[in-house]
Parts: sequence; structure tokens; C-alpha cells
Amino acid sequence: MRLTAYFMPTLKENPAEAQIVSHRLMLRAGMIRQASAGIYSWLPLGFRVLKRIEQIVREEQDRMGCQEVLMPTIQSADLWKKSGRYDDYGKEMLRILDRHEREMLYGPTNEELITEIFRHSVKSYRELPKLLYHIQWKFRDEVRPRFGIMRGREFLMKDAYSFDLDQEGARRAYNKMFVAYQRTFQRMGLKAIPMAADTGPIGGDLSHEFIILAHTGESAVFCDRDFIEFDALSSDIDYEDAKAVAQVVDHFTSLYARTDEKHDAALFEERVPEARRYVGRGIEVGHIFYFGTKYALPLEALVAKPDGEAVPVHGGSYGIGVSRLVGAIIEASHDDAGIIWPDSVAPFAVGLINLKTNDAATKSKCEEIYGRLRQAGIEVLYDDRDERPGAKFADMDLIGLPWQLVVGPRGIASGLVELKRRATGERLELPLDRALEKIAP
Amino acid sequence: MRLTAYFMPTLKENPAEAQIVSHRLMLRAGMIRQASAGIYSWLPLGFRVLKRIEQIVREEQDRMGCQEVLMPTIQSADLWKKSGRYDDYGKEMLRILDRHEREMLYGPTNEELITEIFRHSVKSYRELPKLLYHIQWKFRDEVRPRFGIMRGREFLMKDAYSFDLDQEGARRAYNKMFVAYQRTFQRMGLKAIPMAADTGPIGGDLSHEFIILAHTGESAVFCDRDFIEFDALSSDIDYEDAKAVAQVVDHFTSLYARTDEKHDAALFEERVPEARRYVGRGIEVGHIFYFGTKYALPLEALVAKPDGEAVPVHGGSYGIGVSRLVGAIIEASHDDAGIIWPDSVAPFAVGLINLKTNDAATKSKCEEIYGRLRQAGIEVLYDDRDERPGAKFADMDLIGLPWQLVVGPRGIASGLVELKRRATGERLELPLDRALEKIAP
Repeated sequence: MRLTAYFMPTLKENPAEAQIVSHRLMLRAGMIRQASAGIYSWLPLGFRVLKRIEQIVREEQDRMGCQEVLMPTIQSADLWKKSGRYDDYGKEMLRILDRHEREMLYGPTNEELITEIFRHSVKSYRELPKLLYHIQWKFRDEVRPRFGIMRGREFLMKDAYSFDLDQEGARRAYNKMFVAYQRTFQRMGLKAIPMAADTGPIGGDLSHEFIILAHTGESAVFCDRDFIEFDALSSDIDYEDAKAVAQVVDHFTSLYARTDEKHDAALFEERVPEARRYVGRGIEVGHIFYFGTKYALPLEALVAKPDGEAVPVHGGSYGIGVSRLVGAIIEASHDDAGIIWPDSVAPFAVGLINLKTNDAATKSKCEEIYGRLRQAGIEVLYDDRDERPGAKFADMDLIGLPWQLVVGPRGIASGLVELKRRATGERLELPLDRALEKIAP
Repeated sequence: MRLTAYFMPTLKENPAEAQIVSHRLMLRAGMIRQASAGIYSWLPLGFRVLKRIEQIVREEQDRMGCQEVLMPTIQSADLWKKSGRYDDYGKEMLRILDRHEREMLYGPTNEELITEIFRHSVKSYRELPKLLYHIQWKFRDEVRPRFGIMRGREFLMKDAYSFDLDQEGARRAYNKMFVAYQRTFQRMGLKAIPMAADTGPIGGDLSHEFIILAHTGESAVFCDRDFIEFDALSSDIDYEDAKAVAQVVDHFTSLYARTDEKHDAALFEERVPEARRYVGRGIEVGHIFYFGTKYALPLEALVAKPDGEAVPVHGGSYGIGVSRLVGAIIEASHDDAGIIWPDSVAPFAVGLINLKTNDAATKSKCEEIYGRLRQAGIEVLYDDRDERPGAKFADMDLIGLPWQLVVGPRGIASGLVELKRRATGERLELPLDRALEKIAP
């Protein structure tokens, strides 16, 4: 993509309304634009990151055997009255009357609707287990929306739902999702720590939040430092091997890790030696729940056991804040100059900087490199604007592409290009072929 | 995907509420499930088709130089009051009061919001032209929603917006989009005929609807039969060649083609010889508009001309009914037994039918074929259910995958599989390797 054609309205000044770094950088990089309080439009650069994150979430859900559906944003209030949550949600739920004065709502979550879909179609233990998910916009009418898309009113969430015959089966689904979440966040370059959590309005008695450590986080967290150094998951987990999956979960839940909601100071001190006590702040990016028959009972989602008896199905629900992750990754990965995207979610792999657009040789070299990158399937943003080098460097650092390829008259004379790694600041002068190898090994 | 694990709740009986064939078949094939009046959930099979269609739309928008953004579903009423459309839309617009009693609405279209985004960022002719699109759920509170997702209340639409300095530039954008639409529908196996159209609440003075001929369509159409036989577009159009693009548009608008709204019986008879007059029905799948400065004037979207004078930008908008296309394709492509998916949008390329699940040799052969298809990157739905062959054939015809691979004891003895092409009913007995070649040439 040529920057002269690209719609990327960067800002030079820090916007006054932005209190946290991700909000500030997303506005400055031209990733988002506020549409109304707590509601944002995603501009091309931000949209690309959102899609990258969504795709990683999707691939890991598919891999663990979860099937994608898509439920609507607008739901009837009827099911929510049956489950008893129509009143529980209070003013955070956006309530709507349609033209026939029917009570509708903008879904903040989908336990009721997916249970209704399940109940109409699945009648026997033979059809279990079932795991379904969707990635859909949700609405939560926050009284004071803030922090940009981190605490907006309209947000993109992946929510998955499991259906099993009994608690043991539900626990297997819970464990698989737990491991899938670890893999998902790991692929985004994040260390997400699973912490025992309250269940809130979803209900149930088993729940973990996945928390990224960041000093701008909304929750105080207390955990064993061993967690911060924990090993990456091996990439070849067999989800059908319930024992292996359970071992991963046991490993990651064996150490102390809690947010302030669940923190127990005495237990913390008892279980974690002083040198390993980490106290800081964190951002919630995922939350999983086992809630048993909480929804199956009132909504009458029954399945026949092998002996013919009809019993309520056991359920769990599993959320990932897809749009929130865009901000969370920035909170975890930036410096004074701007964003530092992990390769897996970067909007483009490389920024190509033409240092002297009015020099024919430089222009022709840049066009050649631009063509070669595109041919190699490497996504490139080409700064072909007639701007000072300083402004180009600043914008490229701001938007945080993993690699920068800098081409100017001096390099052309010596047959070299300059390659900069955004994360480390490391610069290399090297022949073009070697640079391309480094970008796409 | 194994059918025993897949969530595809097919129905044996025709649902009473479905009046048209696409609605009937989508319910029977387990593609959708009604959530409330005119609002549907997409189950795994339907979701796959929706995503295929969305991806074709996206690729053709990207190819013509349109950049993807994502605007929210919920908008503030303020901009709509400025443009004057808050009253125009009447009860079809879903109006919402948030917790602070602010007037919001569920966007039925996005001319106001995109103009506001543009106005904040683009100030000079040097930054033009700009072409932006998004693919987002819309809401239209139909008084009597019907025909399933063909005339639902919550629907997925691609809407694009062009910004140019003057009418001539806007016409170039209009022409490019016209050609992109032809390519888009062609890739889905559809013949969409562009017809001169009224502009309705979008406004403006130049507009075409893209109409698929289907006898269940909502519009009466009158056109030259030459259109029905028209040549496919060549695939290598250069969108930067404005003259070549205009020639394609001229070609496709040279023949008579109008819906009842714009039909002129006298002109029809004058311009089209009797033998070439086609009178039938059609389904609208796309609609493009040039509306000049209709939104730029009230919303003050001004750009500086080369001489410094600030003038309102010229705009157009361009819609494709993404979810509606799922139904439109079925209306155009089915038989008594069920859906016939064009290859490009099919949820799976091939259905693999095990005729005798309790026979070890048949099972092992099917597993081998299933593995080979997946390894070759061919998407396969494997009917491994313990069901009668008749039920399996009926379900496979119903869901309309382009190819069926039938494996039973008799074929294994002779070293052959049976390959059926859904569209033609043609059956071939041939060695497995040859069958795989036919499926993925």
C-alpha cells in the first residue's frame, strides 16, 4: 500500500481526551476515530490489526474443535426474562423498543440465545459434546466509557459455549478452552496469566480470568513471579487427550495468581516466598466460566441420557475481548516513540521509507523493492510521501510496523539498504536480498 | 468435518412459515434459525456460505482500490439531524435512547458517519480520490419482515463511499464500482443485470440496481434478452484506465433494463424488438448511487481546490446485500432436491458419503479418503453417520455441495469410487486419484 493513497490520518499532537497510552497511540496513529461516547470507527490501519487478532482467535477456536456460528446483535427480551437476567443487568444493558413496541435488547452476551438454539436441535447424549462460538459486536452501556476501545460501549467479543452431559464432560470442555486461550494469547506475543475469578452475572462456580500484566491495567494483581517466567506451551497439544490437557491446566493453576477481587493476603504470603511475590496491575483479555445447569434449567435445555432420562445439559461460556486486545497489546508493547506490534498482529510486516522522493534513482529503487516485497507476499506500507525524513521516521515508529526498510541515495551508491527492527531499534546495512530474507525467513 | 460432530440440524419437513424456496431450504439445511421476527442466527453451514460471499465482496473491493474500515452499528442521532434524514427514515429506523437519554440509532446506512470521518481528516484535493468501505450489520425495522434473510430486519451489508473533487471524478469512482460489482456477482456464479434505478432516501441523480433474475423476486423487471446472454467480463480490467472502465459501463448500460419503478412501456417497445423483450421478476443484490454534494453540504465536508477555494466534496455510495446474497444465490440455483451451490461460495467443496459405516473396509477406505482430501486442502464434509444410504443422499442433495464422493463395499471391490456432480446429476465411477483431480483440478 502506498501511503499517498492510504487513509491513515495520523495526529502530531497528543489528543487531550486520551488518558492511557493505547488510546493516545491509537488516535495518533489514525487507527480509530470516536463516533460518539465510547463508540469508535476503525480506520484502515486499526481495522487490519483487529482482523489479525480476530483471525488468530478464530484459528485457535477451530483447532480445538469449536464450531463458528453467528448470532444477531439484537435479541428479544423474552429469553432474558426466562433466565432471570433481564433485571440482573440493569442500566448497562441497552434496551430497545421496536416499532411494534416489543422489548428488544442489544446483546451484551449470548448464553440465553445459544441455549435456545441448542435446545431446539440437540436431544440426545449421542450428539454431545457440542462447542459453538461466534465473534460478534456487543454493547454495554457503560455509565462513563473511557480508555478508548479498552472500555468502550460497542465492542467485539468472541464468546464460546460448551454443552455436555455432566460436570465431568463440562470440565473437559473447560480445560480444552483454557489451553486454547493460552495458545491464542501466546500467538499474539502476550503473556496472559490465568487467575481465579469471580463469576459475576454469568454465574457458576468455576472461573478464570486471563490477565496481561500492564501498569495501566484496571485490576490489581497478585501472583507468583514464576508465572511471569512461565514456559511457552508446546504447539502440538492433542485436544482429544483429556489427561494431557488437564495436566496443562493443573500446571498453570498450581501457582498463586489472583486479582484484588479474589486476593487473600494471608494465603499469598503463605504460598509465595517474598522474593517471588509480584504485585502489580493487569488487563483482563479473556474470561471463562463453568456454570453447570444455570441456563439449561430455566430454558429447559434437556438431553436424554443413555438410560432415556432427560437431564439439563451442563454448560460453560468462554469470552475473549477481541477489540480490547488491540489496546491491551499496545499497553504491553510500546515505547516513547509509539507502538511496537508483535509480528503476528502487525497491520503490515514492513514499512518502506523513501528518503528522497524527488531523486529518480531512489524512487526507482523503492518501486523495485515495493514490487519485490509484494511479489513475495510480504505486506508493505510504502511511504512515498513528499515529506522530510524526520517526519517519515517518526510516523513509522508511531505506527510500529515490525521492520523498516530505509532507502536513500547514499545506500543506493553502496548497493545497500538499511533495515531497522522496530522492537530493538537495531539497524543493519545490508544488501536487499539479505534484508528480504530477514523480513520473511 | 465429520457430520457426527458437526452442528447441522437439518429438518425433514418443510417449515410452515417459509413462503419462498431460499427460506425453506436454508431452514431445512440447518443454515439458519430464527431468533426473533426477521432476525436470524447463522448456524455453522450457513455461516460458512456467508463468509465465502463476504470474502469475494472484500477481495473485489480491495482489488479496485477501496480501503476497508469498520464503523459501529450504533450511531448518534445528531449527524442524522444535520443531514435531514432523521425524519426521512420514519419507523424503519430503529431508534434507541441510551442510559443518559441520548438519542441513538442502529445504522441502516452510513453516509453521515463516513462523511464526518472524511471531513475531519481530508482537507485538500491532493488527498483525493478516496474510496472507503465496510462490511457491517445494519438494521431496518420492517413492519412485516418475511422471506427469511432475504427481507430480514438485521442484515449484513457492504457499503462503500467515494469522495472526489468534482462530478467527473465521482463518475470515475462510480464506473469503477460498477465494474467491480459485475466482477463480484460473476464470481458467485450470478448474472446480475444493472438497471436504471430510483435513488430513494439516499438521494442523487444517477443510480443503478444490480438485479438477479429469479421468478420469486420482489421486483418486476423488463429487459433486453441480450442481457441474459451477455458476455462475461474479462478478468484483467485495469481500474486505472478510466476509458476502458467507462467502456464496460457503457456496454452494460446500452441495452434496456429497468424495474417496474422506472419502466417505460413505450420506450421498451421502441428500443427492444418483440422477440428480445424479457419480462420477469428479479432480486436486488446491489445498488449504487452518485449523490453529488447532498451530504457534504450540510455536514460541511469541504476540500481545497488547487486555487485554494474550499468546495464541498462529491460523493457516491455503493451497497451490496451480503446476507441477502445467500438467499438470492439459492433462489437462482436449486432444484426439487435442494440447494446447488456454485463452487465459489459452497460451504464445503465435497461431501464424502460412507454407504456402510459398520463395514470395516468401507470405513477404513473413507478414513483414507477423508485424510487425503484434507491433506490436499480440499474442504470436505464426511457423512460418517449410522444412517440409511437414502437419508444420506437426500441430506447431501439438500445441502448442495458441488461434489459428492460415494464409497461403498461394491466400489471398494472394484477399486472405484462414485463421484457425483450436484449441479448436473452426472455420476462417474472412477479411481480415487482421478476423482480427486476432478474435484480440485
